[in-house]
Order: sequence, then C-alpha cells, then structure tokens
Amino acid sequence: MTYCVGMLLDQGLVLMSDTRTNSGVDNISVFRKMHSWTVPDERIITVMTAGNLATTQNVIGLLEERNKAPEERLNSLLTAPTMFEVASMVGKLLRETIARSNATNGQQAASTFTASIIVAGQIKGMQPRLFLVYPEGNFIEASADTPFFQIGETKYGRPIILRGYDPAMSFEDAVKLLMVSFDSTIKANLSVGPPLDLMVIEKDRFEPLHQRRVDAQDPYFLAVSAGWSEALKNAFHALPDYSLYSK
Amino acid sequence: MTYCVGMLLDQGLVLMSDTRTNSGVDNISVFRKMHSWTVPDERIITVMTAGNLATTQNVIGLLEERNKAPEERLNSLLTAPTMFEVASMVGKLLRETIARSNATNGQQAASTFTASIIVAGQIKGMQPRLFLVYPEGNFIEASADTPFFQIGETKYGRPIILRGYDPAMSFEDAVKLLMVSFDSTIKANLSVGPPLDLMVIEKDRFEPLHQRRVDAQDPYFLAVSAGWSEALKNAFHALPDYSLYSK
Repeated sequence: MTYCVGMLLDQGLVLMSDTRTNSGVDNISVFRKMHSWTVPDERIITVMTAGNLATTQNVIGLLEERNKAPEERLNSLLTAPTMFEVASMVGKLLRETIARSNATNGQQAASTFTASIIVAGQIKGMQPRLFLVYPEGNFIEASADTPFFQIGETKYGRPIILRGYDPAMSFEDAVKLLMVSFDSTIKANLSVGPPLDLMVIEKDRFEPLHQRRVDAQDPYFLAVSAGWSEALKNAFHALPDYSLYSK
Repeated sequence: MTYCVGMLLDQGLVLMSDTRTNSGVDNISVFRKMHSWTVPDERIITVMTAGNLATTQNVIGLLEERNKAPEERLNSLLTAPTMFEVASMVGKLLRETIARSNATNGQQAASTFTASIIVAGQIKGMQPRLFLVYPEGNFIEASADTPFFQIGETKYGRPIILRGYDPAMSFEDAVKLLMVSFDSTIKANLSVGPPLDLMVIEKDRFEPLHQRRVDAQDPYFLAVSAGWSEALKNAFHALPDYSLYSK
C-alpha cells in the first residue's frame, strides 16, 4: 500500500507521500512516490502515485522520456498549456499503461495493475491546481468543497484531516497536520512507512519553497508522534465525562 | 457497512455497535446489530454482527430458536459450559449459514454472504471473554496484547482506540473513547450511522451494568462530537510547530 496526501491551501500546495511498497509482508521496499518537474519562473508540476509499482513507474518513466526527447516536447508536461492538460496527459498514460499490462497478461484481473495519481502544480498566469487521476484516466479537481485528496491507505489518517484542515492555515500548520495524519496511519498499518517525502509549493514561486525527506529518526516527526499521544490524552480528558448512572 | 467494537477491560466488557445497514446508498435502514442473552446470576452473552444482513439475522434467529425449543436446550447459548463453546457454536452456525447461501446460489461469489461476529460475555466461575468469529467459523480471542476487536468499517476509528485504550480505564472513560471512535467513523463514512447501541458488562454481575441506545440527538454524543473538534484543535496547537526554514 501507500499513503499520499495533497492539500490545496490559500497560499499554495502541500504534498506528502510515504515510500513503502510491498508485495506481501515479506517483500517490502522503499521507492519514491513523489516526482516533480520545474521550469524556472514558469511552472512546477508534482505527481504522487499509489498502486501497482510497475504501472506507476512506467507512467513516470514515460513522462520523463517525453521531457527529454526534443521531438516529443510538444507532448510533454513541460509544454502543456494548462494544469488541466497535464492531468489529461497523466490520465491518458495511466489508462494506456494499465490496458497494455492487462492485454499482455490475458486473463489477469484488471485490478492487478491499477493505480491512482495525484497531480499538483501551477503554471504561470494561472492558479495552483490539484487533481486526482483515476486508473480509468479520468480525473477530478480539488475545490473549496473538497480541498484535499488522499490516495492509498486513506482511512486511518482521514478523520484528523477532516477536523484540522483549514484553507487559510499556514504551511507550517499544514505540514504538522500531515505529520499527524501520517503518524496515525503508520501506527495502524504496516503497509505505510517512512521515510516520507514532503514538498511545499508556494503560489507564484515555481520552485519548491520547501522540500525534504523525513526519515523515521527525524526529530520533528518523533516529537509529533510522541507529543500527539500525550496531546490526545489531554484532549480526551478535556471532554465531558460519561455517566453510567444519570440519564 | 457497519461498525462494532468490543473492549476487554480489567473491570469487564464495553460494547458498542451502530445500526446502519445499506445495500447501495439509496437503500439505508436501521437494524440492531447487538443481541444479548442472560441467565440471572449465571451468564451473560452478547454478540455484535457485521456483514450480510440476511446471514447475520439467520445466525441470530437460529441462536434464538435454540434457546426457546426445550429439546434443543443442550445445544444452546444458555447451556454451553464455557464461552469458548459459545464462540464455537456461533462460528459453526455462521459457517453453515454462509455455505447454505452459497450452495443455493450456484456461481455467486463467496464473499457476498460473508459476515463477522464479535462474541462477548461471562459464565459464572470464569473470566469475562471476548472473541472475534470469522466467516469460516474459526475465531480468535482477545488477550492482554490485543484487548479489543473491531468489525465492519474499522479503520477511521482505530487510531484513537490504539492511542486511548488502557485495560485499567474506567467504564466511563471506555464509553467516552468509543463515542469518539464512532464519531470519527460516522463523520468520515456514510455507511456507519446512529443510533448506536451501548452495553457495559461488569465482571461477575451477569446482567448489563448499563445498556442504552444513543441516538443522533443524544446530548452526550453531541457534546463529545462538538467537544472533540475543539479538543483536537487544542491538541494540535499543543504540538511543536514545524519550521520550513530551519532543519
């Protein structure tokens, strides 16, 4: 499994992904699931992937190839006129990759090669945008009503984001919120694990404002993890007490 | 879907279940998923069910029938010598019910009729015990290492139980913890909904210490739901702040 979250804020975008991949519990590896491309002063595009690793690596590989081959530049992420076009392109590559894997494998179940991709970024002159691309190649865009997307093992970490998210929050608070959400998921599910990749994209900057890998020994992540247990206990005790006997 | 939790505490057992059943989002009903039998001063047995409603109702119906027919009393929950025997009996009925549904439906997928059951209770002279019965009819028992079981839509409400559970906690705190866990689940997933059924079983009492239905307008549930948002915000702000610029 995997856990990736993309959040659209008033100030920009905050993205976090884990790096654990597994094919059974005895075959666990670390792979980067966050990939980013920038054209200085013009565009920044970041994608995060969940699902079959061969599928997602193939899509990322094809995106990379197009950026490099001069005759393909017209079709590339680096020249697409809008983020909508970028999401369309990623969706088309994803759908084609899954279809090819299924075709060459005969009776194999369609779900085996499935994957989902979060596409985030900004192109000069337009707003930062956030998309969720489905295995079928279609996609949805984040809006004020649904301002964040999760892919992979999404349930454990969802309640805290539902409660904590605010579009006006600072980047620092958004990172903190994601750290808590990832910590809750990692504690509950073996298939999600550190290190985590973090990227903060400030509006109109066209390069990451902040980008780093958060490993399992990261002092801030450890402080959040330990502090959250304590803070939750305090929160819990701050709630009114139940009475078995009144009522 | 469904959400049920059974917790084993030093003082006894605390059980909570929702009541929503759905077959598609346009076919939502309310059904009780918690069923209890007592023999005064001798035993109390409570089961909670998740999964296919026809399957679980059939199992509950068969358990009820056996309690009523005098010649079947030897096979009934009310005469089983141990909770282990009770769990075995529930498992056998569950497996047989699923097998019968599959057999009469030819090619139907096995998973369609699947269900899981939490069995909790105490028989005089023995400790309170808590079991999770699988669709295959086999089961596991809660222990000090795994002191609670969830069935149904378990993921949203799991992190808070992992953080908050303590075997020495009071019944009041355990009820509060379950209210928070159910509230988080209900907020995140349409297939889990109030009213909730709550039962507290004190060790060596052989009747419920406390039992009630918590509806959507229940003042305590509303207070927890509203208070938890506030408490989480405070907990969140109590955590150390992230810095984008230091390291």
